[in-house]
Amino acid sequence: MASMCGDSLRISIFGQSHSPAIGCSIDGLPAGIPIDLDRLQAFLNRRAPGSSDTSTTRREADAVEFIAGITEGHTNGAPIAAIIRNRDMRSSDYSELRRLPRPGHADWTAAIKYGEHRDVAGGGHFSGRLTAPLCIAGGIALQALEARGIKIAAHIAQLGPEPITDEPLNPVELDEAQLDAIAANPLPCIDASTAQRMHETILQAKSELDSLGAVIECVAYNVPAGLGDPMFDGMESRIARIAFGIPGVKGVEFGEGFGATLMRGSEHNDPFCMQDGRPHMAINHAGGILGGITCGTPLIWRMAVKPTPSIGKPQHSVDLDAHRDTKLTVRGRHDPCIAPRAVPVAEAACACAILDAMLTSTGTQRIL
Amino acid sequence: MASMCGDSLRISIFGQSHSPAIGCSIDGLPAGIPIDLDRLQAFLNRRAPGSSDTSTTRREADAVEFIAGITEGHTNGAPIAAIIRNRDMRSSDYSELRRLPRPGHADWTAAIKYGEHRDVAGGGHFSGRLTAPLCIAGGIALQALEARGIKIAAHIAQLGPEPITDEPLNPVELDEAQLDAIAANPLPCIDASTAQRMHETILQAKSELDSLGAVIECVAYNVPAGLGDPMFDGMESRIARIAFGIPGVKGVEFGEGFGATLMRGSEHNDPFCMQDGRPHMAINHAGGILGGITCGTPLIWRMAVKPTPSIGKPQHSVDLDAHRDTKLTVRGRHDPCIAPRAVPVAEAACACAILDAMLTSTGTQRIL
Amino acid sequence: MASMCGDSLRISIFGQSHSPAIGCSIDGLPAGIPIDLDRLQAFLNRRAPGSSDTSTTRREADAVEFIAGITEGHTNGAPIAAIIRNRDMRSSDYSELRRLPRPGHADWTAAIKYGEHRDVAGGGHFSGRLTAPLCIAGGIALQALEARGIKIAAHIAQLGPEPITDEPLNPVELDEAQLDAIAANPLPCIDASTAQRMHETILQAKSELDSLGAVIECVAYNVPAGLGDPMFDGMESRIARIAFGIPGVKGVEFGEGFGATLMRGSEHNDPFCMQDGRPHMAINHAGGILGGITCGTPLIWRMAVKPTPSIGKPQHSVDLDAHRDTKLTVRGRHDPCIAPRAVPVAEAACACAILDAMLTSTGTQRIL
Amino acid sequence: MASMCGDSLRISIFGQSHSPAIGCSIDGLPAGIPIDLDRLQAFLNRRAPGSSDTSTTRREADAVEFIAGITEGHTNGAPIAAIIRNRDMRSSDYSELRRLPRPGHADWTAAIKYGEHRDVAGGGHFSGRLTAPLCIAGGIALQALEARGIKIAAHIAQLGPEPITDEPLNPVELDEAQLDAIAANPLPCIDASTAQRMHETILQAKSELDSLGAVIECVAYNVPAGLGDPMFDGMESRIARIAFGIPGVKGVEFGEGFGATLMRGSEHNDPFCMQDGRPHMAINHAGGILGGITCGTPLIWRMAVKPTPSIGKPQHSVDLDAHRDTKLTVRGRHDPCIAPRAVPVAEAACACAILDAMLTSTGTQRIL
Repeated sequence: MASMCGDSLRISIFGQSHSPAIGCSIDGLPAGIPIDLDRLQAFLNRRAPGSSDTSTTRREADAVEFIAGITEGHTNGAPIAAIIRNRDMRSSDYSELRRLPRPGHADWTAAIKYGEHRDVAGGGHFSGRLTAPLCIAGGIALQALEARGIKIAAHIAQLGPEPITDEPLNPVELDEAQLDAIAANPLPCIDASTAQRMHETILQAKSELDSLGAVIECVAYNVPAGLGDPMFDGMESRIARIAFGIPGVKGVEFGEGFGATLMRGSEHNDPFCMQDGRPHMAINHAGGILGGITCGTPLIWRMAVKPTPSIGKPQHSVDLDAHRDTKLTVRGRHDPCIAPRAVPVAEAACACAILDAMLTSTGTQRIL
Repeated sequence: MASMCGDSLRISIFGQSHSPAIGCSIDGLPAGIPIDLDRLQAFLNRRAPGSSDTSTTRREADAVEFIAGITEGHTNGAPIAAIIRNRDMRSSDYSELRRLPRPGHADWTAAIKYGEHRDVAGGGHFSGRLTAPLCIAGGIALQALEARGIKIAAHIAQLGPEPITDEPLNPVELDEAQLDAIAANPLPCIDASTAQRMHETILQAKSELDSLGAVIECVAYNVPAGLGDPMFDGMESRIARIAFGIPGVKGVEFGEGFGATLMRGSEHNDPFCMQDGRPHMAINHAGGILGGITCGTPLIWRMAVKPTPSIGKPQHSVDLDAHRDTKLTVRGRHDPCIAPRAVPVAEAACACAILDAMLTSTGTQRIL
Repeated sequence: MASMCGDSLRISIFGQSHSPAIGCSIDGLPAGIPIDLDRLQAFLNRRAPGSSDTSTTRREADAVEFIAGITEGHTNGAPIAAIIRNRDMRSSDYSELRRLPRPGHADWTAAIKYGEHRDVAGGGHFSGRLTAPLCIAGGIALQALEARGIKIAAHIAQLGPEPITDEPLNPVELDEAQLDAIAANPLPCIDASTAQRMHETILQAKSELDSLGAVIECVAYNVPAGLGDPMFDGMESRIARIAFGIPGVKGVEFGEGFGATLMRGSEHNDPFCMQDGRPHMAINHAGGILGGITCGTPLIWRMAVKPTPSIGKPQHSVDLDAHRDTKLTVRGRHDPCIAPRAVPVAEAACACAILDAMLTSTGTQRIL
Repeated sequence: MASMCGDSLRISIFGQSHSPAIGCSIDGLPAGIPIDLDRLQAFLNRRAPGSSDTSTTRREADAVEFIAGITEGHTNGAPIAAIIRNRDMRSSDYSELRRLPRPGHADWTAAIKYGEHRDVAGGGHFSGRLTAPLCIAGGIALQALEARGIKIAAHIAQLGPEPITDEPLNPVELDEAQLDAIAANPLPCIDASTAQRMHETILQAKSELDSLGAVIECVAYNVPAGLGDPMFDGMESRIARIAFGIPGVKGVEFGEGFGATLMRGSEHNDPFCMQDGRPHMAINHAGGILGGITCGTPLIWRMAVKPTPSIGKPQHSVDLDAHRDTKLTVRGRHDPCIAPRAVPVAEAACACAILDAMLTSTGTQRIL
C-alpha cells in the first residue's frame, strides 16, 4: 500500500519534492476533536526547512491549507485532506540526476522501478520533504492524544562519529515545561550544552562538505495500558512500519533495544509491584511494551538516522546514459544532518501509531 | 489486523500455546509453485523445541498437516492452510499465572486487554510457539524464492552480556554450502568455534537459572533490484513489521543500522561503479536497500532478541487477586536463549516480506 | 485479498471441495463473548448437505472442530480458527472436469487463472461447500449480535421461473417465534403453504434434470443507528462484498432495491416523525440504510441466486485437450436449487458485515 | 476504511459538498501510463453539474488540478493526487438542515454518527458531488485500460415509474463510434428516441417538484479472461463495493442478475463452443463473470439509482431541536434525476474495479 499507513486511522501521503503541492488525506478520525490550527502550524514549523544554519537553505513556509474534514475548528468525521504548496522549486538543480544517480539516494532504485517517467527532481516522492504531510497527520494526532492526557516528545539522543550523547529519557520522567523547552530548541536536547556541542559539530561537518547521522529518542507519557495488538500489529510493528517510512531511518528499537542483548533475563525483566492499589512497574527496560501491548509505563523508542547522503564532496557514480564511471558533486540544498528536523517527524510517527492503535479494537474485551 | 500480515501474500496466524492446534492460512500465493513437504518439515524442525540442550524440554514434533491449497505437491492457487497439533501440553504448569503475571511476559498486558477470558496457559497467543506457523508460511516462501534464485540465511551475530560475536555477513558473500552448514548447526554461526562458545555460555546461564539475549543477522542473496515500495511499504517497513511480530524482538536494523549514525555521509554512501556493463555497488553499507527499494546488493538486516523472560530465579511480581506484592518462580519449560530457534524464524520473516513485495506491483513500470 | 473479508473482524476462509478439511480464521473478535457451540452447530446444520430431498446427496456431518480462540465457551481475544473435515469425497466423479469445463461453473476461469495445478475436484475452492466456513464465522457473529439484541433472519422470497413469492418481510416485523419457525423449515418461508409449493417445484425441476434460482430476503432487526461508514464502507458495500462472495449470487439490493427505480422521490422518501420523543421512520423503503449508515429501522436486503449450474441434462461444452466441441453430462451430487441451503449463508453474510461495522469506529464521534 | 477502496490501486476520496475543495489520492498506479488531461477533463465534464436542464443549476467547472503523480503527461509511479475547487457554494441554503433532516438523505444518520460537528452543508461528505473525485480516478483508469484495448461504456437502461427502457447491451456488441455517440448524449441511451422520451419525462417530474430513479447498465468490452479473485474479491464484489459507494445506488446485478432467478439452469448456463481454436461463449447470461473471474465475454452489470431524495414538494420531517414533527421543503439545487450524471460514474466505478483486479495477482499462475 506504499504511501498509506494505518489500520483504523488511514493516512495517504502524496506529493513529490517539486510537484505543485504535497499533502495527505486522513481517513478514520472521529468527529468532534478540536484542532488548533495555529499549534499545528507551529508543529510543522519545527520541521520546516530554512529556519536554521544546520538545515537546507531551501525556504518553504510549509503553510498548511485544509481542504476538507475540519469544520469550525473540529474534525467533522469526514476524511481530512490538507496540502502544502511547494514554492521554492529549482528543478534545474536536478536535471543531471536523471543520468547520474546520487550515492545513498533512491535515484538508482527509482530508475529501476519506475523507468524513464520517474520524477527525479529533488528525489521526487522519495524526498524527505514528504515527511511534512506525515507531520500534518501527526500534528493532528498529537492534539487528539493530548486531549486524552498523552504527551509525546523526542530529542537527539546521540549525534556524530565521536558520539555526543544527550541525557537519556529513561528513567527520569520530564515534566511538560521541560518537554516544551526541548521542542523549542533548534537542536532538541534535554541538556542545553549538549545541544550547543551538537550544533557546532554539525556546522563543522557542513564546512567539510560532509554530513552526520544521529539517534533520535522518542517518548510517549501517560499511554493507557492495553493498546496494540498481538504479533504483527503490536506497538513495535506499528511504530516501526511508520518510522522506517521516514527517509534515512535504518534502525528502530524499543526500550533497551539492541542493548537488551547485553543483559540477562534477571536484569532485563521489569518486576511488578503494587502502587496505589494497582500493579506497577518501577523499572522500564521494556520501553512500555510487553507482548506488543502497552503496559502503562512510558513508551520509549529510538530510531537511527543515517548521515545525509547529499554531501558537497565529489563522489563516485555512474553515467546511466554513457554507461561509464564518473564523478558526481551533489548540488541542490540539503541538511548536513537531518536529525534536528527529524525530531518532530519521530513524534508524528509515534502519535499516528498510538492513535491508530487506540482506534482499533482488535480483540479488546467489552468493546461491543 | 493483529495476527495477519502481508499486502499481496496475506498470512493469518492462529493458535495458542496450549490450544488443540496452531496454524495459518496463506492467501495470494500463485498457483503452480512446487512445494517440497520434506524440506518444509526439515525447515520447521530447525525451530522445533526439544532438539537441543539449549532449548525447552517441551517436545513437539511440529508435524505440519496441510488442509488446503496444495495439490500433488504444487500450490493450486487457493489459500493454503496448515495446522500443527499441540501435543505435549501441561496446562497445570500455568494455572497460577492467572493471578501472578510473569515479569517480561505479556501476562499483565493480556489481562488488561482481554480480561478474565484470556488464555493464560503458556502465554496463550503470545507464546513463542506461534512462530511455528510463521515458519510454515516462511518455509513455503523460501522455496518459492529459491526457485527464483534467491537464498536467505541467518546466523547468531552476537550473544550474551560479554558479547560473543560471530563473523559478519558483510562484505563476504557466503556460498550455498556454507549457508547450509550454518543452518545445520543447532547454534547457527559462520564460525564453528564461536558456535561452541555460545553453546557453553547458554548452558552456563541456564545452570544459573538465568537467560540470555542475542542479535540475529539475516541476509538475502540475489534479490532483484526494484522490490519494495516508497514510504510505509519500503523493504525496511515490510521486514520490520513482521520481525517485530516475533516475541522478544526489541530492535531491527538494516545495513549499518545504528552503526550508520557513527559514520559520515562520505563514508556511509555506497558509490556506484560500472561492472559488466551495469551499475554496481561494491560496498554495501545500505544493506541492499535504497529509498525502501532493493538495489541489487545483498539485503542484510539484524534483529535484537531480548533475554528470555522466563527464568528459574525467583522474581518480584504481584498477586492480581490478593492485590499485594509477591514472589514468583516461573515453572514451565523454556529456552535459556531463544536465539538459536529464532534464527529460522528470522529467515521466515524475511522470506515472507520479500515474496510479498515481489507479488505487489505498486507503481512498478510496465506491469500492465 | 480474495478469500478474506472484513475491516476490523477479519475472516480468512480456506479449503477446497475435496481437500482434507475446510475452515476459517477470524481475527478481531473481542474477548469475553460467550459462544454456544451447540447452537453454532445447529446453525451449521441448516446449511449442511444431505438433510433434505431438495439438496445434494453428499453427506457431510459438517462437525466444527475449534482449533483456537475459544476458552471455556468464550472468545479469548486471540484469533479463532475452526475446521470441518471433508469426509464423503468422491474425487473420481470429477476427473473428466479437467478437460471438460462445466457451463455456468468456474472450471473454465480457474483453468485460465490457475493453470494445470488448479484443484478441479468438486470445483475446488469455488465450491459452494466453502460457504460452510462463512457460516462458522457468521454463526459466531450472530451469537455476538444476539447478545446485543440484534436478530437476523432470512427466507426464500421468490423461487422459480413462474415465480412463487413468499410474504414480504416489509413492513411487518416478525417476532422471535415466527423467525425461529422460518429457520426450522427446510424451505424457509414465512408462509407454510408457499414453502410447500416451492418444495414441489424444486422436486419437479430435479426430476426434469434441471435446476432453479431464487431470491433470498434477509432482515436484521434492532440494528442500532449509526453503523456503517461513508462511501465504500457503507452497509450496502459491506454486505454486498460478502454476499457476492457466495457462489451463484448475481444480484444484491437493499430496501426497495431495483423497485426503487419505479418510484418517485415523493413516494420513495421515508418521512421522519416523532415517536416516544425520538425521530422515527414509520415507512422503510430505504431498507434501514441512509447514506450507507443504519438509521434504526430494520435492515432489509435481497440477493439473487442463479439456478444451480450443475444439471443432469447434457450440455454443450468443449474438450480442452482435444480442442473440439463436445457434450457434457454433469455427474457428481448437486442441489437442484441452492436457495434453501443459502438462506443461513445470507444470514451469516449479514451478521459478519454488521458485526464488522460495529467493531469499526471510522469517524464516529466520541470514540476516543 | 470508509472513503478508500481498492486492493492494489488504492483510492482515497476526500472533500465535502461545500469544503474548499474535493479530491482524491490514487496509490499504486504503475509508472509510464500516458494520461491525456484534456480527455480526462472531458470525461469529468460529462458528470459536471449545470450543463443540462435536467441537472442541478449549481455551476461548477470541475476543473481538475493535479498536485502530484504525473510528470510530462505520464504517471511517474508516485501516488497521484488531484483536487477540484468548490466554487459555487451557497452554504446558507443548508443552514436549517442542522435541525431538519431531509427524508431520504444522510442528514439524520450523519447526526447520529458524527454529532454536532458534522458538516451539514449540501450533505457534507455524503454529497453526490463526491463522485467527481471518483471520476478522476476512474477517468485515469479508463485511459490505462483503453491502452490495453478495454473499452467501458454505460447507458440509462430504464427510467421512471412507467419504465422507459433503452435497448439492451446484451447480446449486441456496440462499436466504438456507437459508444462514443452514447457518451456524447446528455441522456446517454443507445436509442436516440428513447433518450428524448427520458428527457421529457425528467422535465415533467421536475415541473411537478418530484424526482425519478433509473437503472444504469454498464459494459466492459475486451476484458481479458482471468481477472478477479475467488470469494470476496470476485469481480462482482469488487464492482459492487465501489458502486454501492455512489450515493443513491440501492441495487447491483451482473449478467441476468435478478432475472436469472426466473430461468432454469439449462437456460441460464452459457454453453462453451470452440471458435478460432479457443473455447468461446456465444451467449452471455453470466455477464462475463464465472466464479468471480472474468471469462472473456463482455462484462455487463447494472445498478439501480433511487429517485433523487431532494424534491421541491413539502415533506414530513422532525425538528431535532424542538423535538416535534414539522414540514420541510428542500431548497438548494438538485437534479430531478441523477441517472444522466451517474452514467460516467458507473463507468468510473467499473474501470477502477477492473484495473485494480488487473494489478492484483492473487493466486494467478506464473506471476512470479
